[in-house]
Amino acid sequence: MKIHVITIGDEILIGQTINSNATFIGQLLQENSYSLSSSSVVRDDQNVIITEMQRTFDENDVIICTGGLGPTHDDKTLDAIVKVFNTELVENEDVLNDIKVLFGKRNRELTETNRVQALVPKIGIPIRNENGTAPGVFIEKDNKIFIALPGVPLEMKSLMQDFVLPKIMEKFPTKFVTKQSTLLTTGIPESFLYDEIKTIEGIIDDGNLAFLPSQFGVKIRITAVEEDEEKAVEKIFGVEQQIRSKIGRYIYGKDAQTLEDVIGKLLDERGLTISVAESCTGGLISSRITNVSGSSKYFERAIISYSNGAKVELLGIDEDLLSNYGAVSLEVARLMAEGIKAVSGTDIGLAVTGIMGPGGATENKPVGLVYIGICDDKVCTAKEYRFGDDRLLNKDRTSQAALEVLRRNILGISYDE
Amino acid sequence: MKIHVITIGDEILIGQTINSNATFIGQLLQENSYSLSSSSVVRDDQNVIITEMQRTFDENDVIICTGGLGPTHDDKTLDAIVKVFNTELVENEDVLNDIKVLFGKRNRELTETNRVQALVPKIGIPIRNENGTAPGVFIEKDNKIFIALPGVPLEMKSLMQDFVLPKIMEKFPTKFVTKQSTLLTTGIPESFLYDEIKTIEGIIDDGNLAFLPSQFGVKIRITAVEEDEEKAVEKIFGVEQQIRSKIGRYIYGKDAQTLEDVIGKLLDERGLTISVAESCTGGLISSRITNVSGSSKYFERAIISYSNGAKVELLGIDEDLLSNYGAVSLEVARLMAEGIKAVSGTDIGLAVTGIMGPGGATENKPVGLVYIGICDDKVCTAKEYRFGDDRLLNKDRTSQAALEVLRRNILGISYDE
Repeated sequence: MKIHVITIGDEILIGQTINSNATFIGQLLQENSYSLSSSSVVRDDQNVIITEMQRTFDENDVIICTGGLGPTHDDKTLDAIVKVFNTELVENEDVLNDIKVLFGKRNRELTETNRVQALVPKIGIPIRNENGTAPGVFIEKDNKIFIALPGVPLEMKSLMQDFVLPKIMEKFPTKFVTKQSTLLTTGIPESFLYDEIKTIEGIIDDGNLAFLPSQFGVKIRITAVEEDEEKAVEKIFGVEQQIRSKIGRYIYGKDAQTLEDVIGKLLDERGLTISVAESCTGGLISSRITNVSGSSKYFERAIISYSNGAKVELLGIDEDLLSNYGAVSLEVARLMAEGIKAVSGTDIGLAVTGIMGPGGATENKPVGLVYIGICDDKVCTAKEYRFGDDRLLNKDRTSQAALEVLRRNILGISYDE
Repeated sequence: MKIHVITIGDEILIGQTINSNATFIGQLLQENSYSLSSSSVVRDDQNVIITEMQRTFDENDVIICTGGLGPTHDDKTLDAIVKVFNTELVENEDVLNDIKVLFGKRNRELTETNRVQALVPKIGIPIRNENGTAPGVFIEKDNKIFIALPGVPLEMKSLMQDFVLPKIMEKFPTKFVTKQSTLLTTGIPESFLYDEIKTIEGIIDDGNLAFLPSQFGVKIRITAVEEDEEKAVEKIFGVEQQIRSKIGRYIYGKDAQTLEDVIGKLLDERGLTISVAESCTGGLISSRITNVSGSSKYFERAIISYSNGAKVELLGIDEDLLSNYGAVSLEVARLMAEGIKAVSGTDIGLAVTGIMGPGGATENKPVGLVYIGICDDKVCTAKEYRFGDDRLLNKDRTSQAALEVLRRNILGISYDE
């Protein structure tokens, strides 16, 4: 069974936009024991789109197109479908109604341009889109499937998951079961992780491991392809256990979890509350904590004390002490954590101060220097970190390290590596 | 003149790696007034690679392949080239010497596996690679060019810039100069923008416009292809002016700018300071403001008043008033902005409160309801917004709308659409 993805859009070919849609579809298929055979990108040119649709529909069993379904002149997918499948466009009442509802919610009036979005090819069925005005298109012909999805990632993703994948599974059931599991680590470099794990006998050859590093840590992906689900699950479980026995304390979560998800769950289960004092991260830690739905149960407040004045007034840090040690210091990080815990009355106070760059460095305090402080009812401590030169990456790394300090505090794991 | 890129590698198709090589090549060509006509991704399967090379070489003038040139079993590009061009592999002395030098530098001994890397197709010439052991391959045939480059981004990039681009420019000198400009808008949906712009005579046909929507707004990309640079620049300028005259107040920036960059510049130029009170965005607005290097000059502090207690204690909001109107209300948004301005002593106070979902909605206050307040020395006001159902997208949209309110405040543009 062959699956091909066509991405339609000049913005991909001129390098303005990364083709994240094809990446997502490839990943989703892989996770569900299918695999993408090939993919292509073509310009917003009707003749080129038609030729590519015809060629790939001849050579594959499933074609998934993304892009070119919007309401403007550079959206040419529907016209191409009409030519390739020798059909016509008809207004679909359900889709028109969806669009009206969406516009009603946003208090906007429907224009003629929007009404055009209710046109769908007669030969296909519309895939209704809750997140936007452009429906997808589903066509079955010659025992093959042709799908067109909007290019906006959020819309494409939900239609892929809720409609397209189930349709493929129904029409082309698979013989082998592929299972994957991804262990999420942070605070240990890829090469150190690899050196630890490779001492497990046979794991590099048999374990089907992939190491995926980013500023948030290294993900370890384990893949098992077996004849039945039970065997695949067992294989994955075995490899996971071996890896956990070696580097377990660096593993904060699994699969699609984020560190803020994990922390939210831990705080919620234990009935603990948290407040945050951020300097160099400027709100990123709090923003991540509040990305989790229901975080108001444990997240009380944060103070983004960018100026020294804010540190003195809102966190009660002594002015002399601040000028003695400097705002970026182990002492101030600890006092910030102590201060935010005290003023907010939470169980835990978390604080960061540092130099994200490119400016702000002094002779003794380079770009990338960060202090993270944490206080609960028993301990009040801080630790030094050294990150890199890139401001945004440093913010990400600092937020990840701070959330990991919080995780280890809750679980009673040592902060030291 | 048609250029096609073939990316070879399973890791792209299973979604493990983003196809950043194709993005880079597209960008480099575009910047040099060439453009990529199409691109494709194929598996590490020799027959598939052969078929794709043959098909695309027939249909294009330049083929650039990346990947599959390494020394291991899953590297199949060279064997495919041998079949497609009916040639054979011969050891190249210069390349062998390059490899020896590289290994010398790294204090490693040459193995048989490495020696294989000195084999190049007889019909082509090797493209010597300073950054790795795999040379590229350059073939000229039937007035066309075929190039194979290693998949490691660093190696691919330097060979592309130093060898491939000059070769393309030599063989296919361009008559035309391509210039692009991207106008960044926010606060107006794609269809409304389109309806406004299409009233400009001839612009849709001649303007070479593309509309690129996301949760942060719609980008309008203008392209001009002309015989000389001056004409192209003039054309772009003309189209830009026409668009600005229609929808100028929605345009916050150009090209790679972010809204926080624009605001930072405005605040800095005017010597203004800002403080922020965030509820529903949980720190995202402050984090974006502080993504800009040098933001400590104008960003004083933020209070993330997630709890009602924090709103009362830190922003001085009256408890009765808070329970009367509710935390998510026009009045509270205005009072939060007033409060943060007062406690921090900044020129401007910005505040948001809302329901990001999926929980937290009440009968009268649906998910997606947001109030944004702003106060300076003259005005103190707030406005209602309605966004969607997705928590993270709502946070992005709210932060963008709040920063746009700030931009309009500084520039004295009305907040109303």
